[in-house]
Amino acid sequence: MRIAIAIEYDGSAFSGWQHQRDQRTVQAVVEQALSRVADQPVTVTATGRTDAGVHALELVAHFDTTVERGGDAWMMGGNSYLPDDVRIIWSRRVSDTFHARSSALARYYRYSILNRNVRSALLRQQITTCYTPLNVAAMQQAADYLVGEHDFSSFRAQGCQSKSPNRRMDRVRVTREGEQVHIDLVANAFLHHMVRNIAGALIAVGSGKQPPEWLHRLLLARDRKQGGVTAAPYGLYLMAVYYPQKFGIARHPIFDFLPDDLTRIDHRQIADR
Amino acid sequence: MRIAIAIEYDGSAFSGWQHQRDQRTVQAVVEQALSRVADQPVTVTATGRTDAGVHALELVAHFDTTVERGGDAWMMGGNSYLPDDVRIIWSRRVSDTFHARSSALARYYRYSILNRNVRSALLRQQITTCYTPLNVAAMQQAADYLVGEHDFSSFRAQGCQSKSPNRRMDRVRVTREGEQVHIDLVANAFLHHMVRNIAGALIAVGSGKQPPEWLHRLLLARDRKQGGVTAAPYGLYLMAVYYPQKFGIARHPIFDFLPDDLTRIDHRQIADR
Repeated sequence: MRIAIAIEYDGSAFSGWQHQRDQRTVQAVVEQALSRVADQPVTVTATGRTDAGVHALELVAHFDTTVERGGDAWMMGGNSYLPDDVRIIWSRRVSDTFHARSSALARYYRYSILNRNVRSALLRQQITTCYTPLNVAAMQQAADYLVGEHDFSSFRAQGCQSKSPNRRMDRVRVTREGEQVHIDLVANAFLHHMVRNIAGALIAVGSGKQPPEWLHRLLLARDRKQGGVTAAPYGLYLMAVYYPQKFGIARHPIFDFLPDDLTRIDHRQIADR
Repeated sequence: MRIAIAIEYDGSAFSGWQHQRDQRTVQAVVEQALSRVADQPVTVTATGRTDAGVHALELVAHFDTTVERGGDAWMMGGNSYLPDDVRIIWSRRVSDTFHARSSALARYYRYSILNRNVRSALLRQQITTCYTPLNVAAMQQAADYLVGEHDFSSFRAQGCQSKSPNRRMDRVRVTREGEQVHIDLVANAFLHHMVRNIAGALIAVGSGKQPPEWLHRLLLARDRKQGGVTAAPYGLYLMAVYYPQKFGIARHPIFDFLPDDLTRIDHRQIADR
């Protein structure tokens, strides 16, 4: 049978999600914990990877097992074996057709910036500090150019393994909350470093180094070399994942604006346009 | 000359604010850092103490020095010598009549509760978890009994060194923000463990173990033995301190409701009533 789980983690002390030899990764500690609950080896497949230092509030993953465990047992049991910087926040049996990565129709990431002249003691590995006052309206104006189906090569890391540089950006919202500035992004999927590269570009606009229109030119250039700084990992959070209703997975309210008949994007079609 | 500073700290790895032999305290690391900036011993006086594990967003302190340093030098220099779980967020020269503790007219504390069935990975030492669903309206109804000038003996730790158990509670506000419940308290000052004892009592009301009226009876009993559980330190934050306008210290917006002519409370007068 197939089980879906959602995982919250503090990425500060991890070398990212995915297995790496001799590194502490979230995937490794989660698989170790679930294998102990199952009393047999468990391999999990996640909705996507996160880099070292990146956090998650609700990364979704699935695994197959022949072991019967009732109700919240995977969550409760898993948490009893996990270190305290990782928590399984829910677990549920799902249809065998569910796949944490390929069933996902949209992802929500947040990039958080502390905009003041001193770093934070409390959020020291959970937020990126920008000393220059940020113009949120200019950042939003720039961000609006990104919405829609585009080739995001200008925001793509060199080592990115995706076949296509095309993505459908559903929303980019820049808001200020006291001393913090949040960039909320919803897209069908993200290229490697895409959020951090967009955040770096938006910070350049917000601090007045570039006009909002620069982001449009940058998008059209399809050239990472023109893209500027990759923002630090610490401010980045995978917030939530959106799946078709039929799988019975609760949706984060940010997805409410998406149409009910949202489908997976076919990148070959976009590339052909 | 006298310098005022505001300090943010993550209390997780500290044995509280105040000096204790062979313990890591915030006061000790701040004094060490400032002494290096001054190149002479510096002793700081804080608005109050915090217990082990308790955090601060803006604890105010002052010190006297014969050393001239321009503008933000105490902040910038101090931060260069401080560990990253403590930050000086501003520094300014103040009148010699300013005193971080005795000039303070009000303090603002927040107690934060994560109200769900799993602890947080990201906020694991920055919030208290309550598994039972909390009724915020009942908590607010109970909290309202605390507003005004009262004898708070029922919420006072045994070892509390204050001469009087009387305090003026200006506001207690209980709000829900998604999975989090915040208790915001503004008072002229707080007894030892007073916020954590109030939080423990409000959690008992919110989870249905006690009716809201119980908090009124508890207050009138003036007896800590009837008070129930002291909530954990991790959810507690010293948020801000309110000083007379004449000292030129920026005020947190939560204090806006207080009258301009607010004065220091005289506990002997209250005790006589």
